[in-house]
Amino acid sequence: MNIDMIRASAERLKGYVRHTPLLSSPFLDEIAGRRVLVKPECLQHTGSFKFRGGWSSVSSLDDQIRRNGVIAYSSGNHAQGVAYAASQHGAPAVIVMPNDAPQLKIDNTRALGAEVVLYDRPHGESREDVGRAIADERGLTMIKPYDEPQVIAGQGTTGLEIAEQARIKGVVSGDVLICCGGGGLTSGIALALQADAPGLRARPVEPEEFDDVTRSLISGRIETNNRQSGSLCDAIITPAPGTLTFPIMSRLCGPGLVVTEEEALRAVVHAFKRLKIVVEPGGAVALAAALFHPREIEGDAVVAVCTGGNIDAEVFANAVRDYG
Amino acid sequence: MNIDMIRASAERLKGYVRHTPLLSSPFLDEIAGRRVLVKPECLQHTGSFKFRGGWSSVSSLDDQIRRNGVIAYSSGNHAQGVAYAASQHGAPAVIVMPNDAPQLKIDNTRALGAEVVLYDRPHGESREDVGRAIADERGLTMIKPYDEPQVIAGQGTTGLEIAEQARIKGVVSGDVLICCGGGGLTSGIALALQADAPGLRARPVEPEEFDDVTRSLISGRIETNNRQSGSLCDAIITPAPGTLTFPIMSRLCGPGLVVTEEEALRAVVHAFKRLKIVVEPGGAVALAAALFHPREIEGDAVVAVCTGGNIDAEVFANAVRDYG
Repeated sequence: MNIDMIRASAERLKGYVRHTPLLSSPFLDEIAGRRVLVKPECLQHTGSFKFRGGWSSVSSLDDQIRRNGVIAYSSGNHAQGVAYAASQHGAPAVIVMPNDAPQLKIDNTRALGAEVVLYDRPHGESREDVGRAIADERGLTMIKPYDEPQVIAGQGTTGLEIAEQARIKGVVSGDVLICCGGGGLTSGIALALQADAPGLRARPVEPEEFDDVTRSLISGRIETNNRQSGSLCDAIITPAPGTLTFPIMSRLCGPGLVVTEEEALRAVVHAFKRLKIVVEPGGAVALAAALFHPREIEGDAVVAVCTGGNIDAEVFANAVRDYG
Repeated sequence: MNIDMIRASAERLKGYVRHTPLLSSPFLDEIAGRRVLVKPECLQHTGSFKFRGGWSSVSSLDDQIRRNGVIAYSSGNHAQGVAYAASQHGAPAVIVMPNDAPQLKIDNTRALGAEVVLYDRPHGESREDVGRAIADERGLTMIKPYDEPQVIAGQGTTGLEIAEQARIKGVVSGDVLICCGGGGLTSGIALALQADAPGLRARPVEPEEFDDVTRSLISGRIETNNRQSGSLCDAIITPAPGTLTFPIMSRLCGPGLVVTEEEALRAVVHAFKRLKIVVEPGGAVALAAALFHPREIEGDAVVAVCTGGNIDAEVFANAVRDYG
């Protein structure tokens, strides 16, 4: 995993990925006590940065292998990113989803061109087993959600953009806060910043009780979460940092930050009111840290990556009503 | 009013205005039956395209005149756009607002650096009279909301961006739908498209019962609205097209389109779900026309300008709940 892979991925993504702007508001600066720059990856195709990794992976395959198709297991943003990237390449995609996933997510994934295969989560069937069996049977290439070099490279292109956009705005030092699940985006951005903006430091942000990466960075070894579900920030809940992503984060990232669910929801509402963007709770934890944990952050300016916007209408309406 | 003024304005705005992206979603294409490209000016500074006209006007003034300050009357997006543009230039700004305006809008305008002067709307005081008296007394320059050359020039920069962005996406013919109040944005975009993308045709979109521009384009003379208030689409309600803007629209625009309030609210929710942007009802009428009036539109692709996102939290939450 290195910067050359990220630059090569950026070349393949050019013209297909959305170059998201860097947003700001004097009202957010006021709350944070410093300049806040927001990278809204919720505006990316399929509503999250995951499209980058999906495109990066699918576009890296040899023609013949790509024609056979790809497979991914995910009930969320990775599913949609891979499905859409594959269909845009004319490649078949199978997405393995739990049979108790919301019908809307299943419908959306199908509408983006993928075949959805359901596995029996309530009765303990393993998505890895189901996925591997189908992959072997049909000769599909598995695209893992984060512990996969071409996925990390794709997510890292976000970091190349941040480095350039921050420089144009005169920001060459400070913290870059990233909503972190398995660490694909965080490690990719960390590599990109090391190369193109060495004064900017990547830092993972997680919700309370799901702070595996933060704890791993402290202990120096991979720590796991006690729970795998039950968070409003479901988009970034993973069992543990990856075996590829953790060493990169360990080498390059600053300390992790941890926010409460309420802080994440408040950040969702601030993004609604001040930036006019729709962010899901898991995609808002970095902005929450920027706004509500100012003393844990260094520098005159902070960059927060809002990683996704695929939020349930009811959850969003409630947040806006409660904190608007 | 000509294209050179728009290009000169674009030069002055460079680096200060936000270059908003052109968004799309296969789900919206599906509804509309053609390719839909959305220009999200809700992501502009202060949450609407009005910042462009504000910046264009303030930056066009001689230093001495600018130091004296500017004045505008508005309770909405124009107020915030002028206030922020003036404060970023270090110029004093007075905004004349009705004394029954929501406290939040008054607070926001003040927070953006303006002095707010209230006039007694419920008792019939005229904002024009109040504004003119203060302007004369203090030597302030009045920035009218749309019938003002430098305002039209600033709004027209949106059209220069659309022309270039659409070309990159391979769209060189079709309709460009614009949420239309007094016609500053619509006439500016029409001039820009005539010069840079002659295959693209500007068309105003209005809410039912407030379709003064549509009727004026049909009759060939300035028609007025019977009512001035009582629309959810308040951001784009004006008495009649301007004396500067109407001749330009009459010469260059295609026929107007008219949508219902419910269609506007449904478009707000589609923008939320599929594009992850926050749009106010008045800023969503163009997208509503693109989605729900396909047979009134020509071409394989349509561009819809989402003009603003300054929506009340309660209104947004209700829309998401009702139509989400």
